Parts: sequence; C-alpha cells; structure tokens
Amino acid sequence: MQKSLSIAIVGSGLVGSLLAVYLRKAGHSVHIYDRSPDIRKIQFSGRSINLAMSDRGWKALDAVNVGDSVREIAIAMDKRAIHVNNELKFQPYGFNGESIYSISRGTLNRKMIDLAEEAGAEFFFEKKIWDVNLAEATLQIGETERGEWEAVKYDMVFGSDGAFSRVRHRMQRQSMFDYSQEFLPTGYKELHIPANPDGTHRLDKNSFHIWPKGDYMLIALPNLDGSFTCTLFMPFEGENSFASLTNRKQVEDFFEKNLPDTVDVIPNLAEDFFKNPTSTLVTMKCFPWTFENKVALIGDACHAIVPFYGQGMNAGFEDITVLHEFMEEFGDDWEKIFKAYEKSRKPDADAIAELSYRNFMEMSSKTADESFLLRKKIEKRFSEKYPDKWLPLYSRVTFSHRPYSEALAIGDHQKAIMDQVMLLPQIEKKWDSEEVEEKILGLLRF
Amino acid sequence: MQKSLSIAIVGSGLVGSLLAVYLRKAGHSVHIYDRSPDIRKIQFSGRSINLAMSDRGWKALDAVNVGDSVREIAIAMDKRAIHVNNELKFQPYGFNGESIYSISRGTLNRKMIDLAEEAGAEFFFEKKIWDVNLAEATLQIGETERGEWEAVKYDMVFGSDGAFSRVRHRMQRQSMFDYSQEFLPTGYKELHIPANPDGTHRLDKNSFHIWPKGDYMLIALPNLDGSFTCTLFMPFEGENSFASLTNRKQVEDFFEKNLPDTVDVIPNLAEDFFKNPTSTLVTMKCFPWTFENKVALIGDACHAIVPFYGQGMNAGFEDITVLHEFMEEFGDDWEKIFKAYEKSRKPDADAIAELSYRNFMEMSSKTADESFLLRKKIEKRFSEKYPDKWLPLYSRVTFSHRPYSEALAIGDHQKAIMDQVMLLPQIEKKWDSEEVEEKILGLLRF
Repeated sequence: MQKSLSIAIVGSGLVGSLLAVYLRKAGHSVHIYDRSPDIRKIQFSGRSINLAMSDRGWKALDAVNVGDSVREIAIAMDKRAIHVNNELKFQPYGFNGESIYSISRGTLNRKMIDLAEEAGAEFFFEKKIWDVNLAEATLQIGETERGEWEAVKYDMVFGSDGAFSRVRHRMQRQSMFDYSQEFLPTGYKELHIPANPDGTHRLDKNSFHIWPKGDYMLIALPNLDGSFTCTLFMPFEGENSFASLTNRKQVEDFFEKNLPDTVDVIPNLAEDFFKNPTSTLVTMKCFPWTFENKVALIGDACHAIVPFYGQGMNAGFEDITVLHEFMEEFGDDWEKIFKAYEKSRKPDADAIAELSYRNFMEMSSKTADESFLLRKKIEKRFSEKYPDKWLPLYSRVTFSHRPYSEALAIGDHQKAIMDQVMLLPQIEKKWDSEEVEEKILGLLRF
Repeated sequence: MQKSLSIAIVGSGLVGSLLAVYLRKAGHSVHIYDRSPDIRKIQFSGRSINLAMSDRGWKALDAVNVGDSVREIAIAMDKRAIHVNNELKFQPYGFNGESIYSISRGTLNRKMIDLAEEAGAEFFFEKKIWDVNLAEATLQIGETERGEWEAVKYDMVFGSDGAFSRVRHRMQRQSMFDYSQEFLPTGYKELHIPANPDGTHRLDKNSFHIWPKGDYMLIALPNLDGSFTCTLFMPFEGENSFASLTNRKQVEDFFEKNLPDTVDVIPNLAEDFFKNPTSTLVTMKCFPWTFENKVALIGDACHAIVPFYGQGMNAGFEDITVLHEFMEEFGDDWEKIFKAYEKSRKPDADAIAELSYRNFMEMSSKTADESFLLRKKIEKRFSEKYPDKWLPLYSRVTFSHRPYSEALAIGDHQKAIMDQVMLLPQIEKKWDSEEVEEKILGLLRF
C-alpha cells in the first residue's frame, strides 16, 4: 500500500480528470483546479475537433473500469470516407474491422469530471494558478496575475493544464530546461452538420469523413444526436486561406466551388464561419517533465501535438498508463517513479509529434492520390498474407500498444521498402504478383 | 532625415550599446536600461569567455567610426595553437594572414558604454524591466516581479537583453510565436593564466590556444595585461565531467594527467575551479523578432548560440548592420524596416546557430585528428590555386560578409566533395597531385 499523499492536479481536462481517478484508486487525496468554470454548467462548443478514441485511450480507461461508461457516448468509425470530385470512397482503418471512436470533447470532459468526482476527487473551478513553488509543491492562486495570491501547499502537484501550462511555465524558468513551441501556418475552424429532422445522420454515421483538397481539408466526425462536428483546416494566408475568406459571399462561393457536396448539409455555413474562432495548431516539446518528487507534467502540458493522427488524447491517457506502471513498480519512491516516467515517455511523445505533423500531408493530399491508394492496397495484401511481418503504420499507432517510437522507426523502414516497390516497372498491373511479394520479403529486415 | 523618435533599449550589453550609437547618429533619443549595476563600476569576471572579434563585428563598429578605439583593446590571433600530447601545432586561420581578435568581454562592454554615452545615449542601471506593453512600447519597471511597477512609454523598444530576454518573454505569450531553447549537456568554467612577472604572455600571444580532448577541451585567449582567459568546456555528467571533479585533489590530478602542460601556467587552478561558477550553454531560436513598428529583438535576445564559432557577438553586431541598411532604405517606415530586418536575418541566425553547434566537434576532436589536418591541407592547396572557386567555410564565416546561410550551404557542398576526395586510395600520399585537383574541379557545382 502506498503512502497516502495530498495531491493537486492543475487542469480539469480529460487527462487531469482521468489521472484523478487513478490517484484516488491509489489512495491519495486529490484536488483538481481549473481556471475555467465547471464545463458541466456551461455551453461548450465552437472551437473543438471531435476526439477519436483508439486502443491506447481505451486501455487507460478500462484499467480503472470507466471504459464502458465512455463507450456509451462514443460512435464507432471503422473507415475513412473520402469525398473527392463528388464521389465517395471508403478506406477501412484496420484489416480486421477495427474502429476508432468519435466522441465530442465537451461530452467526454463532462463525463470524465463526473467519474473523477465519483472516485472522490474534489474540484475547484474558476481558481487561477499563476505560479508554483516547485520545491514546496505549493500553488499560488489568485484572481489576476498582478493581484493578491493565496499559497496552498500539497505533497505533490501534477500539471495537466495543456499546451500553455502555467506549471510548465515555472519549470521553463529553471536552467537546463529544453523547450520548443512551433505553430503551423495552418489554422482550423469548427463547422456543423445538423441531424436530419428524424434524428438520423446526414452522412454515413460510422465513417470519419474527409474532403482532401491538397493545402486544406475538411473533416466531419459523427455525434450521438445525429449531427457531425466538422473541422476546416486551412492556411492562414495565401490563395486558399482564412485570410482570403472575409465575407459571407466569399465563404459561400468558396464552398460551392470547392466543396459542393457539403453545401446542402452545412446550412449555417456563413454564420458558423464568422461566429466560430479560427484556432491555431502548435507542436510543443519540453524536457524534463518532472521536478524531484514534487511536480510532474502530463498530457498536452509536456507534449502538445497537432491533431492529424487523432492521438493527442490517446497519448495523454497513455502517459497515465505508463505512470501507473511505475507507481506499481516503485511504490512510494516518487522521485524514481517520475524519473522513470519521463525517461520512458519522452521518446514516444517526440515520435507521435513527428507522426502527427507528417500526417497532415497524408490526410489532405495523399488520400486523394491514386498512387497512395495503390500503396495501401499492396500493403494490405502483404499484411493479410504475412500478418507477423507487416503491421501497417496506422494500425501500429492506432490499434496497438507498442511504443510510438517503435511505430515511427518501423514505419520509416516500411516506407523505404514501399518506395522501392513502387519503382517496379508496371507496378499498377502487377501489384498483387508474387514478384512484388518477394521484393518486399527481400527488403524486410525484421 | 528620419523623424526623431524616443527609443528605449533594454540591456546594456555589447549589442545594446552599439545599437545606441547607431540610433543616436540617426537622430533619435535613446534610453538604455539594465537590471545590473554599471559594469564600469564593478568587478566583472569569473564567468566569461573572451570574445573573438572578426570581420562582421569590425564592419559594424567601423561604420560608426568606433572600430579604432576598440582595436586599442584587442589582440590579433592569426592562428590556432593546438596542444596535443605536449606538442604544439599551429594552424593559420586564413590563407592571407587574416586574424581574429581577442577582447575581454568586460573591457569591451565598458568601452561600448562609454562610446554610447559619448554619442548621447542615456543609461539607467539597476532598473529592472518586468514586462512590456508591446502595442504601446511601454516598459514596466520595478524592484521586484510582484512589487510596484512604474510604466514608462516610448515610441519604440529594442530588446537586447540576451538569451533570457524579458522583452521576448512577453512576445512569447503572443499566439503564433515560434520558440525553442535547447541546452547542451556540456558546460563551461573560466580559468586563468596570469602574466609573467615582466608582464609578457606565458604562451604565444597571437594564438587562440586549444587543448582538444575529445569530449572536453580547454581554450585560452590572450588579454592585454599579459594574462590569458581560459575556458574549460566539459560535460556536466559522465567520465570526464564537472560532476566527477568535486574536490581539489580530483581537479589537480585530472589536469596533471590530461592537461600536463597547463599545470605550470595555471597556478590557481583549484581555487579558480571552485570559485568560478559552471555555466550552461544554450541555443535559443524564435520568430517573429518584431512587433508592428513598436518592438524589435536584437542579438542574443532573438538568436542565442553556443560559442564554438566565436560568432555570437559578431552575429549580434551584424544584426545592427542589416537593420541599419533597412533604416537607410525605408526611412520612417519602421514597420517595413522591422519586417525586412527579421525576414533577412532569421535564416542567417539559424545558419550560424547550426554552424556553432557543429563546431564543438571540430574544435574538441577533429583539430587533433590527422585525417582532419590532411583535409585542411588539401583545401588550402586547392583554395590557393583557385581562390575564386574555394573559400573554406571558416573563412567564409569569419573573414567575409556573405550571409551565414550561404556559408552553411556552400560549406555542406564542400564537405560532400572532400568526403569523396578523402576516399581516394592512398590520398595521404597523393594529396597534392593533379588527380586530386581534377577530382575537386569535377565535383564542384558552383
């Protein structure tokens, strides 16, 4: 039995709430602080991308028996639905019917807070943390940055306060703290496809819908109420850009010309476009993630990634899985737990950041590309015949629990092989031949 | 004639002081703030590396006629003096006797502040800037971060406040601000070789002395008073590391064993070793560098680099040269000046960061390596015969005014050629043959 500690978690998002459940189960007292109001009591919308829960996320939820109650608010998506030239093509995600699960961020966050409360965590909303005394695990809480602060001391503090974490902000001011933040020149905006009058979905419900357009793309993920949450990813500047769409007519003309099959299903296009903010996309990396046995960062607070692999939340939940394994292994030695956690997790966080960054190209351009689809067909055929020798990158990231860093390394190897294969003369005719199979077998080095 | 503005410069270091001279000559009113006391009135030592002024630095000084007064405190170094196995080898820096110039940081900083004052700039020491209102070019000045602040408004603010700039700190909190800081696992410590009793230098005065030891190295640069400022670069952890040298005996034994020819010339080794701090080495990059026509970063505040190319100060001074060119070109349009400045300068700042990072390996390992010396000999021979076709990388960085980014690109090309050349059978015998010459000519693509 571990010694019971008094622990503060800064940030009541998905990772903070699930971490609270784990820490409560380990017998600790848990206070969760958030600068925002209780999300259960306010409208939450207009700037989110629907979540895609996959195996890593489910594992972390199921380990504390909350997976099933989350499944109630999730919709399985077993394929991409690619909208190109008013045609629809389906690409299954897995070879064995595997699915990822669409969940609205607001709905899941409310559920996670309920679950943490049920587990005995105590929430403090609209409490702003401005600074943290790292060595003392003491929070500085106040109305404003320059106003009066109250100091509240704990045994330990977790920063799960996201990409712009205040806890990390204090750690950044230590010497030898590596840090980077890099913004994409692409932003995003939420749009909305309402349900049919009878409550059914206007597009195939069990698909992740993509309109790949090269330098921009639209995606749509299903909600329980028959609607879809859409996200338009687009450069801030340039020809097809947010800067070029400044009035109703421009927006409507743009969609009519470039995304004609969306016009009927997005009735409030222009209203939503100008009501909803344009949000930025940032990759944030840092190290170390912990301070002695007192403070640890988790989730986006230590590894914010762009959303193009659907792994942000899954990676954050997997942080908890890994942390928990070391809690089991090292008992009360939190310095050892923290050191092992950051050391184990950092290469995987860097790997999923890289994979997510690269995947924008795959989603926005390559899914519409014949040669890319041929690659996928060849991979699929080989993988079905030699499942032990070839698990495609997407599956390794999404439907396995192998480290992200391994997925990146093996994925690069597979890509090098497929680059060779695609150079074979007349590959489009002999893609399912023994020659291609032999070629791949000859190049595989694992 | 430009409109006269009231300008604040935050940071009274080398770049801030020289910038003040330029802005005064352009007719502006200039206030310089520094959180530290006036360096002219205090002892400054124990944590610096001597500066190596080269062509880019001199150009910026000479353009406002202060070069000659700086030359009075500089010592020419026309070669590296490599100490290996108690032997001494000399490597000239240029092919035409070019030199870099050793200057102690404290001495130069005092001189630069004098020069800025003579030009009419007003200094405010021991004034701490805690925040900047970017849109209003307003400084927040106070004793402590949480105490009372006084707001002082200017037309424009320059942040020349170094790698941990407070001005940049405010810009960092803007959206879309790219930022990275990365620490080396290597630190450094200042040591001291005093003058001979008669005031002469104990080692060759006109050399940059290096003891290359692989994962660590010692350097020594001459001072006017006959002494040398030495710097020991060494990993924080590991076999040969600061962590492994924790008492007098360990330090003395280490130097006796590994750097025996320094023992006689560093009499206060152990005292200095434990009195002087171990400093960190950081590479910091960011973008943008400016805010509207109100705020601009310059020098280390926007591009802190590791010291292994001797270009930190030179790059900062060249920022001023470039800024000044755009001041001449765009007159009162400071938004245009700032945009052109950051756009022009960013790729060059990234390039010298990369070159400086790489150069640690060259200085600490390769200068002791036979194959490296052979490369240098081949390059020298070819360059002397075809001066228009081959300017070595070091010369392009140090003795030219061509952009750093060009130096990096051409340097990479030259390295690829030399990699090929070094693969020629028996290269060590035919290094000065026509075959080698033809090989290089055939591979050159510019």
